[in-house]
Amino acid sequence: MAKAKLKIIPLGGLGEVGKNMMVVETESEMIVIDAGQMFPEEEMYGIDLVLPDFSYVVKRKQKLKAIIITHGHEDHTGALPYLLRELRAPIYGTKLTLGLIKSKLAEHHLSKVQFREIDPEKSLKLQSMKISFIRVCHSIPDGVGLAIETQLGTIVHSGDFKFDQAPVDGRSTEFDRFAAYAGKVLLFMSDSTNAESPGYTEPEKSVGVSLRDLISRANQRVVVASFASHIHRIQQVIDAAVVCGRKVAVCGRSMVNNVGIASELGYLKIPKGSIVELNEAKKMKPSKVLIMSTGSQGEPMSALSRMAGKTHRQVEITPGDTVIISANPVPGNEKSVSRIIDLLFKAGADVYYKSVSDVHVSGHAAQEELLMMLNLIRPKFFMPIHGEYRHLKYHALLAKKIGMSPKNILVAENGDVLGFDGNSVRITHKIPAGMTFVDGLGVGDIGDSVIRDRQLLARDGICIVVVIVNTHTKQVVGRPEINSKGFTETEEASKLIDDAKTVVLETIERELNIKVFDQVILRNEVRRTLSKYFYDKTKRRPIIIPTIVEI
Amino acid sequence: MAKAKLKIIPLGGLGEVGKNMMVVETESEMIVIDAGQMFPEEEMYGIDLVLPDFSYVVKRKQKLKAIIITHGHEDHTGALPYLLRELRAPIYGTKLTLGLIKSKLAEHHLSKVQFREIDPEKSLKLQSMKISFIRVCHSIPDGVGLAIETQLGTIVHSGDFKFDQAPVDGRSTEFDRFAAYAGKVLLFMSDSTNAESPGYTEPEKSVGVSLRDLISRANQRVVVASFASHIHRIQQVIDAAVVCGRKVAVCGRSMVNNVGIASELGYLKIPKGSIVELNEAKKMKPSKVLIMSTGSQGEPMSALSRMAGKTHRQVEITPGDTVIISANPVPGNEKSVSRIIDLLFKAGADVYYKSVSDVHVSGHAAQEELLMMLNLIRPKFFMPIHGEYRHLKYHALLAKKIGMSPKNILVAENGDVLGFDGNSVRITHKIPAGMTFVDGLGVGDIGDSVIRDRQLLARDGICIVVVIVNTHTKQVVGRPEINSKGFTETEEASKLIDDAKTVVLETIERELNIKVFDQVILRNEVRRTLSKYFYDKTKRRPIIIPTIVEI
Repeated sequence: MAKAKLKIIPLGGLGEVGKNMMVVETESEMIVIDAGQMFPEEEMYGIDLVLPDFSYVVKRKQKLKAIIITHGHEDHTGALPYLLRELRAPIYGTKLTLGLIKSKLAEHHLSKVQFREIDPEKSLKLQSMKISFIRVCHSIPDGVGLAIETQLGTIVHSGDFKFDQAPVDGRSTEFDRFAAYAGKVLLFMSDSTNAESPGYTEPEKSVGVSLRDLISRANQRVVVASFASHIHRIQQVIDAAVVCGRKVAVCGRSMVNNVGIASELGYLKIPKGSIVELNEAKKMKPSKVLIMSTGSQGEPMSALSRMAGKTHRQVEITPGDTVIISANPVPGNEKSVSRIIDLLFKAGADVYYKSVSDVHVSGHAAQEELLMMLNLIRPKFFMPIHGEYRHLKYHALLAKKIGMSPKNILVAENGDVLGFDGNSVRITHKIPAGMTFVDGLGVGDIGDSVIRDRQLLARDGICIVVVIVNTHTKQVVGRPEINSKGFTETEEASKLIDDAKTVVLETIERELNIKVFDQVILRNEVRRTLSKYFYDKTKRRPIIIPTIVEI
Repeated sequence: MAKAKLKIIPLGGLGEVGKNMMVVETESEMIVIDAGQMFPEEEMYGIDLVLPDFSYVVKRKQKLKAIIITHGHEDHTGALPYLLRELRAPIYGTKLTLGLIKSKLAEHHLSKVQFREIDPEKSLKLQSMKISFIRVCHSIPDGVGLAIETQLGTIVHSGDFKFDQAPVDGRSTEFDRFAAYAGKVLLFMSDSTNAESPGYTEPEKSVGVSLRDLISRANQRVVVASFASHIHRIQQVIDAAVVCGRKVAVCGRSMVNNVGIASELGYLKIPKGSIVELNEAKKMKPSKVLIMSTGSQGEPMSALSRMAGKTHRQVEITPGDTVIISANPVPGNEKSVSRIIDLLFKAGADVYYKSVSDVHVSGHAAQEELLMMLNLIRPKFFMPIHGEYRHLKYHALLAKKIGMSPKNILVAENGDVLGFDGNSVRITHKIPAGMTFVDGLGVGDIGDSVIRDRQLLARDGICIVVVIVNTHTKQVVGRPEINSKGFTETEEASKLIDDAKTVVLETIERELNIKVFDQVILRNEVRRTLSKYFYDKTKRRPIIIPTIVEI
């Protein structure tokens, strides 16, 4: 195959939920769509954040004309502060998206960034691409999909979307504008998050009905926890509070921050006098107060966790309070959400949450919507994006169902390079597109070997052995020292450790007798015999770090 | 309150899913109902198994007349091998329950155990208690609930149950026998696992219909993974295979084991010639084979994981195979199940699982069944058991709904002692009833401090510092040695570590100049300055273990 004149490279978001990032590259130019982060999986011990490996982009930064962010969620914006340390390019987003990004970049002390506000009525013209923006509904306002016209054909990217037919802000997904591309799209890329869910995703307004109902029945204080970026949800909570004669206090750093940005930019309509400070709220009659809080994922340091655990400085949950967790647990957070629910029940609250009440709906299209979207656009080629492998696979099955040829459906992985040649799209090769770990200040300095060590340390702990050897007399001086962490309780295992010292002593004395002094051999022998000894006695394998001091 | 003549003490299973264990104690006698294990939570690093703290029982072992096991699931039997190391008492269970327990105890090399088979038609008469057994439906055959008649009143324990109106083995829950106690029960304890689920739990046979449908449509090999103890499910898989003209090969140690026990004892009816060895199966036409396998929880070493990852010695998943995961992910296993599904899809299989197909139903009663059970029995006091705190709470709300007085509903925790005094039941006090960790050969030798160390090690790793000090000249000999694990990649951090050595050197030299030589002070100072240095440079806090060798 000749060198492709147009390439699409997913750098993240395929085979995973999070760190979405897509490269579109012509001969002369390159754009990046989204730059998201992902939360670490349980076994990525100690990792704070996972980023896409964007070295491909950094190496070609001269070509980079635009970073286009489809909407303001962290899994689409979270890698930006790290990407911007490596390169500069204008960031395109709608008003709210840019508002949220600016606040994030300020926290990272990044300045001199070029922001270009997207007006979805207008398109962005580069030399080799013309990019149009199409409004989509999602669980954050102001999201867009993209139509990218190139010499080789048109590419449509759905962004994250659902088909809410009567959205809270009155701004439906622009069906007609997607339909305008019908039959003219070479490649369509579409959000697969809910491809396993049959039917339609419930409209956001249905949550408003449930919230109003629950809040109106509450006799004491009401606390509602949700995603801080879910502006429509926050709007509905405020509206319900006002209808029920309650004042709203906003609680939790990101909630305060986002409510500020969204209301300043006009995305949140706060009726005059409906908001009070938390300080004031705690002096008011509980039946007149609603607290809008962070913590819907059971994060241990969040406002909700601290209220439930009675460690919050201002609010504490008391019997009779109503707590509504208006969110779903993000995969991996099931346990921590379950824990906060138990804690709230123990504090005496009436607790309402997704699995027992209609207090949350998804922001992603379900199967019928995905089918409709495919039929609206009728692309020649289709690549499911944004989702675990099984979501991509289900989305591919949907495309097959409406008659697409399986060879035109590309279930790709991060790093697969889609080359466009005349009228066809094929995966031509693969580039590295793994994960970059952020741990504290370190970005990418921690790799698989550190993670593997952390896993070993977490499983059986570590044993530290210090032995002093007189290299002249070839004798061990004193008794070996053994220190352990995470291996066994010190007191109960004192005999085990004492016997282990004898094992070390005997090992070294034996080695010294038969061989010349060799640090490496000695250390290996100590590691081997001690490991065997511990395994026989405990069936555990702590990491063993011997130090042999020569005097 | 006078010393209660009858006590009930939950030692496990309240506020958690797993390690069920209940003590019933009169003045002269004691029985234990169930002795289960629990799988460790994610943050209990390195722990293999969690047991109830049964020291209360061990201390009173002279009084212990019977260990009654309601059914053969691990969360009701798994602590038995450990309990039997501490004491001996006859174990009561139905035929299948005992069959499964015997096999488990044999693995632990425990002999001389007294087994007493329960015949649910007959009751067990102790001096101060008469115990009747009532058959219940559950996701394993041969389960029972208990009615315990004592001088102070009758206690009913539901076991784990559902109301399957037409169960696979034709043995319904004995509604009439529960109803015979109506109005005469002082305390009822009932399974709360599904107290959040509205309506009725679907009957087990409904899964059979789905399985038959999926298997009949498969063109190549079919693999079904389920719980090895789910004998009804295994029966339905075998029946479906036979109907569809497939031979069944059984795969995975516990599956082979349980199929053997259950068919030997007559709980599994295997049509003649329907089972083949795995060796044979792999030579047969794929369309004539069904493999019944373990691995429904995504366990990395299970048969299914190895087949998917192509590391199984005999079978490997190939494109066009059908894989059915006929189970739900146990809480905490969502991620690993999700991973195995992705792996199977990547291997080219058509994969069916709970969230997209009707291939699993629960074994626990949902709200309507729980209400029905409460109304059948009409107890004076009610204690929800078996479930997270929120399940107990929801079960309590159901009891309130049918008119029970809130003060007669006891939402208790493990270790709460329920004292019976005349006609009332009250929580009188609390005994220790925490968790006992099993790690390798160690039972209970690992406590919170080791777990905490493992968590610290997992988060930021460890740094080992060795410094040699000449106590006469008060000088450091050579350069400090620093070793790290799980903290930072060695090569990239060589400058960091080298500078850290200087920090250590300066710290010790400063201390030696101003003070007399003191190991404790020196070590603390090294820990403090190095910790601060690392935190400033990396925002990480590895554990620091300094050793100061005096020469």
